[in-house]
This record gives sequence, C-alpha cells and structure tokens, in this order.
Amino acid sequence: MKAHLSRRYHLSASHRLHSELYTAEQNRETFGKCNNPHGHGHNYIVEITVSGQVDPATGMVVNLGDLDGFAQEKLLARFDHTNLNLDPAFRDLVPTTENLTIVVQQIFSGFSHARLERVAIEETGNNSFELMSV
Amino acid sequence: MKAHLSRRYHLSASHRLHSELYTAEQNRETFGKCNNPHGHGHNYIVEITVSGQVDPATGMVVNLGDLDGFAQEKLLARFDHTNLNLDPAFRDLVPTTENLTIVVQQIFSGFSHARLERVAIEETGNNSFELMSV
Amino acid sequence: MKAHLSRRYHLSASHRLHSELYTAEQNRETFGKCNNPHGHGHNYIVEITVSGQVDPATGMVVNLGDLDGFAQEKLLARFDHTNLNLDPAFRDLVPTTENLTIVVQQIFSGFSHARLERVAIEETGNNSFELMSV
Amino acid sequence: MKAHLSRRYHLSASHRLHSELYTAEQNRETFGKCNNPHGHGHNYIVEITVSGQVDPATGMVVNLGDLDGFAQEKLLARFDHTNLNLDPAFRDLVPTTENLTIVVQQIFSGFSHARLERVAIEETGNNSFELMSV
Amino acid sequence: MKAHLSRRYHLSASHRLHSELYTAEQNRETFGKCNNPHGHGHNYIVEITVSGQVDPATGMVVNLGDLDGFAQEKLLARFDHTNLNLDPAFRDLVPTTENLTIVVQQIFSGFSHARLERVAIEETGNNSFELMSV
Amino acid sequence: MKAHLSRRYHLSASHRLHSELYTAEQNRETFGKCNNPHGHGHNYIVEITVSGQVDPATGMVVNLGDLDGFAQEKLLARFDHTNLNLDPAFRDLVPTTENLTIVVQQIFSGFSHARLERVAIEETGNNSFELMSV
Repeated sequence: MKAHLSRRYHLSASHRLHSELYTAEQNRETFGKCNNPHGHGHNYIVEITVSGQVDPATGMVVNLGDLDGFAQEKLLARFDHTNLNLDPAFRDLVPTTENLTIVVQQIFSGFSHARLERVAIEETGNNSFELMSV
Repeated sequence: MKAHLSRRYHLSASHRLHSELYTAEQNRETFGKCNNPHGHGHNYIVEITVSGQVDPATGMVVNLGDLDGFAQEKLLARFDHTNLNLDPAFRDLVPTTENLTIVVQQIFSGFSHARLERVAIEETGNNSFELMSV
Repeated sequence: MKAHLSRRYHLSASHRLHSELYTAEQNRETFGKCNNPHGHGHNYIVEITVSGQVDPATGMVVNLGDLDGFAQEKLLARFDHTNLNLDPAFRDLVPTTENLTIVVQQIFSGFSHARLERVAIEETGNNSFELMSV
Repeated sequence: MKAHLSRRYHLSASHRLHSELYTAEQNRETFGKCNNPHGHGHNYIVEITVSGQVDPATGMVVNLGDLDGFAQEKLLARFDHTNLNLDPAFRDLVPTTENLTIVVQQIFSGFSHARLERVAIEETGNNSFELMSV
Repeated sequence: MKAHLSRRYHLSASHRLHSELYTAEQNRETFGKCNNPHGHGHNYIVEITVSGQVDPATGMVVNLGDLDGFAQEKLLARFDHTNLNLDPAFRDLVPTTENLTIVVQQIFSGFSHARLERVAIEETGNNSFELMSV
Repeated sequence: MKAHLSRRYHLSASHRLHSELYTAEQNRETFGKCNNPHGHGHNYIVEITVSGQVDPATGMVVNLGDLDGFAQEKLLARFDHTNLNLDPAFRDLVPTTENLTIVVQQIFSGFSHARLERVAIEETGNNSFELMSV
C-alpha cells in the first residue's frame, strides 16, 4: 500500500524582489512594495510531500528522522534566518516564493529514501506556491 | 518551469438552503437547520489556484495585483457582505457551497493571465468544497 | 487551587447592522457594507471562560458536560443557524458583535456551576470582542 | 457538474509504536520516543474527501447528515478516546498514522452515497498522511 | 518598560481520567469516555507567559535560549511522548489538564530569569486551561 | 456597558538583532542566528485591543473604519514591507519584537477614539509579546 507523508518545516528569512533586467521604474511597477530597497521578510512554511510503500515491519513510509535530518542540513541550515538574496541560488534569480519553491524542489530531489511528490511553500496565510513532481 | 499559485480571499455572506422543487417538509428534512426561514451566514474562504510558467524576468507565475484586482471586481464586490440567495446566479440554484464553488469557477475562468486549476471554498473550519479544472 | 477553563462554541448566523435612530444615509455612513439591506453572515466563535477551585476528587473546575449542556440549550439552540436581527434581544439593539457579546454574557451569568470570568466572540479571524466580569 | 467535498472529524487517541518483528533495541532505534513503553497520544484530524455530481434539486454532492452518521458509527465510536494498539485492526499492524490512514480508508470505502477520493490524517500540525483512491 | 513574553511548547501524551475515590460507576458518570480503561491522548500546547523589564542592551525580556533550555529539561523531557498517569506527580492526582496546568506552573516557578505570569494549556482546539500567578 | 475590541493587522518586515553595546562575539552569543549579518524576516501579527462604552445608537465600541484608517497611516505605511533596522525608532534600539511592541504602543496611544488596553505582537506561531496599558 502506497501512502503520502507531508511534513512542514518553518523558516524565517528576508528578501527583496528586484530584477536586474528591469529599470528602477519597471521594478517598482512590477513588485510594488516588495521592491523596497532594504527588503522585508516572512515566516515561510515549507511542506514536503513524499510517497512510498508502507513498510510492513515499521508501518512507515519513511523514517521521519531521516527526512528531518536531510531538511536540517540542506534546507534550514542554509535558508533559516538569512537574507535569500545573498544565497548563490538567487544570484541570477529573483527570490520570489515561486523561485524558492523551485530551489527547494531541486534540493529535496536529492532525498533518496522516498519519492518526492510535491513541494509547497506558504509565504503568508493567504499566499502559497507549489510544484508537483512529474 | 511551471508552478501553482494559490491565493485566499475572505468573504462574509448569508444564505438559506431551500429548494423550490421540494415541499416545506422535504426542505426541512433535506436541509435541517440550514432551511431556517431567515437564513444564517458564514465567513467563506475562497482559495483560487492558478498555474503557469514562472517568468524568467520576474520570477512570478502571475502578478498578484492582477489576480487581486480581478477578485475584487468580480468576486468580492459581488458577494462580500451580501445575501447569496438574492444574487442572480442563485435565482434557480440552491446557494449551497457546492453551487457557490461552481459559480466562482465560472467567474475565474474569465481570468486571462494564468490557467485556472482549482477553486476551493471553506464554509467552516470542518467543511470545504472544491472543483478541479479539466 | 483556582483555575480558569475556556471552552469554544461555534455558531453560524446572519445579521444586518442598521440603527432605527439613524437616517438611511447615516446608516450607510456608519455601517458601510454591513448595512446592506438583506444582511450577511459569519461563523462566530464564542469562547466562555469560567473559574473555580479544582475539585480534589475529580481534578476538574467544572464538568464539561454541564457547561456543554447549558451552552447547547441556551446559546446554540437559540442563535446557531439563525438571523440575529429576529431574536427578541435585538428588537431594540443593533446586532453588532459587541451587543451579541453582552447578550451572551447575560446568558452565561445564569450558569451556576462556576464563576463566569469572560466572554469573547471572534467575528472573523481579525476581529474579536470581549467582556470581563467584575 | 462533479465536485469534491471534504469534511474533518476530530479524534483523540493514544498509541505506542512497537514492532513484534524487531528486538527491543531495533524498536528504540526505529521509533525513538514513540516506542516509550506506556504510549503517548494525539488529537488526530481525519479529513474525508468524497466526490459526486451536484444534485440539481439540492445543490449538494452528498447530505452531510449521511456522512456524519457514517463517521460517528464507524470511525468515532470505534477510535475516539481509545488506545489504538488495542483495536483488532492493529493486532498485527503497528498503529502508525500511515496504517491508521489505511484502516480509515477501508472503513470509508463502505460509504455508499458518494465516491471516496482521499483520506488524510493530521497527526500534529506538522505531520500528515494521505491515501488517494485509484 | 515591562513587557510580557509568551512561548508555546508542544507535547504529545496520553492519559486516563479515573479517580481512586470513586466507584467504577461514579468514574464512568464523571469522566465519560475519558475514563475508557486504556486511555487516550492529546497534542497539548503549553503556553508559558513571563514578564520582566526589557533589557536596554539586548531589547529582550529574557533570552529565549534560557527559557527553551529550561522547558526542554524540565517539561518536554519529562512529559513529551509519555503516559501522564505514570508520572509521580499524578500518583494521587487525576491527570486532568487542570492538574497538569498546576504541575507545569510549579515547574516554571523554578525559572529564575523572569517572573512567571501565567501558564495556559490547550488540550484541544476547543478546550484550554490557565493559571495566573498572584 | 464597557467592552473590549481586538483587531489584528498583518505586516511583513525584516530585522537583524545586533547591539552596538556588544562585541561581535557577545552579539553572536546573545542573539544566535538572529545576529546573522544580512537579517531575516517575519510575518508579524499586531493585535490592538481598545476598550470603551458600547454606543447605544450604533452598538459599537469604536468604528472599525477609524481604527483601520489610523493603523494604515501610522503602522502599516511605516513598517509593512520594510527593514525595521532602518526606521528612526530603531536607531538606538535593537529591533526585537519586545521593542517593536513598545513602539507600536506609543503609536496607538495617539488613537483618540477609544482607550488603548493592550498591544500584542506575534512574531511566529510560537512566540508573542504584549504590553498592557496601566
């Protein structure tokens, strides 16, 4: 029997939305107050969904310890309490939550104990973004 | 890279569940206290999910300003702080949350900046309804 | 040892804010869209806080069965799935959530198994009202 | 028009994760503090999603009274305020939330008024599990 | 300037409500399904409120690291993923959430870096208990 | 009859905790990852509680339009989508949430339509801070 497990990680970070391809005016028009020069921040909730067979011996899809260890090392140590704009992933990429979701999906594609199904990131209680694996 | 964006809008409205095709007794049996003559109300949470390519210049699936403007004009100005039974859409349709979801899906099908994937409406913390685009 | 117990009850109702003492224009100015003629509605969360000695035999301030029975009979049967404007309490009183809180406090003052400390009503996730007993 | 309806049921239960196939040491390694001898507990939120045509007369996918009656009899009366390890379903099955989800899916497969689409169980605010029907 | 800080800790535990002073029938009458012989469980949310002067150098009432370290050692290591009935504090005390709140208040009275103002424990989303310091 | 009204405002901002009175090492010891050089951010929820007589004509403690207008001009326009460290209020003050609460209290002391009772700011779902008026 195959089941999905979803686990939520919490991280606080700042970002500024600004595109190098745009003029100052285009940036303000496109990003509004998200383009304010010194950035702002969010409590992001990252939800990782993986799937797999339920192991008959343990009754588990994946050991949460394995998933949490991976998330701690690859996700939280890298992004929690940081300014996203300074991460190498965002050197040429605007750090929107859409792009953060793409980066997090690439990271969790490297998790080998279960199949990655979906990455969803909640930016505020009213906004969220997701990527489904194909 | 294609991503999904979900955005939540909040509206407060009243409704009464009552079918013209039913007798008074059938109405009471079918709808229970939702058939009370003078209606009742809810804080509805409408979640709109759209998808599209992440724009390489902006890092966005869609500009939230466009989506919010559309929602303000077509959804909130029409239904927020109203009695649903009086809306033309519900002249011949019982204003259940199922039917409200169908009406909202028809409205957002007219949003041209991204593909509509899903409309979900939470009626209370324990009840929600959704329609997926095909 | 004296402790406080808080319990939440959920009710869905409709109301229209309209004062008999005001002209149509004053009503629109004061209540805005809450004055729309056919009303609107909310999922109200009513939180009742009572206090008392923790009974050494049961470890309880009050038996929840007693509080729930009282709430069912006096609060939910009366207001859930109704139009507040039609309740006798609101014959001469605008059914704002402030006034609903006052009415609910009067009701729970009649609960004899513990001291009523506070009534709080959440109208939406961003608005709430409370009355403290003196 | 086909719609999905999701409804949430709340149940409080205790469990201990322990596999008969493992030594005491393997159990501690695999389940950590979830293997503590006398168990622990959770407030589980069980979300049942069903789908069906929206009935033109009632505007409903399914009568909530039917779904709630089924859930009361088959889900809540059996598992709420119990120790999961003592339920016959878990005689040879570790009562992880993955396995609880499988058991709940089997139960709701017997609901005849709409098609079961999905069972999701939230174990804590950060952990959830789901099974999709095929 | 004196401020309050509130911090939430999460623990999962099981309990059975049963009084040695009562007959089996009195226990069933008083505690209902909470008296089921093998217990059940909850995700408890423990909120600790402390107060103090805001330190002009750090801008903080208390260092969260100190409060979290204390909570980890004295609260979580003792109660998380356990059966409350087996804790020495509940040898002669029914492990209701009222009594758990009293025990947690006694524990945090030993926290020396700020004044304890209040302990509140949420047993479910609809039930909570609190003790104020005097 | 006197009642309390609480209203929540949402703002996203970034900050870095760093005291000019401390060495680099003391800053790291005191603030941990909150001292990371380029800051991080939060979705802050600011809850303003005011009290007053319930107006017999309107049934309201205060017109929400007045409170919202004040909050928009004095709170949101100033802090939403900004870096708190750059605000003049934090020139000589570490922008902890304790200090932000003090600044917000000073701001709302200028609201003339009702008595300010309490300012509470939630920094994350697990951390909040409050100031009571005396």
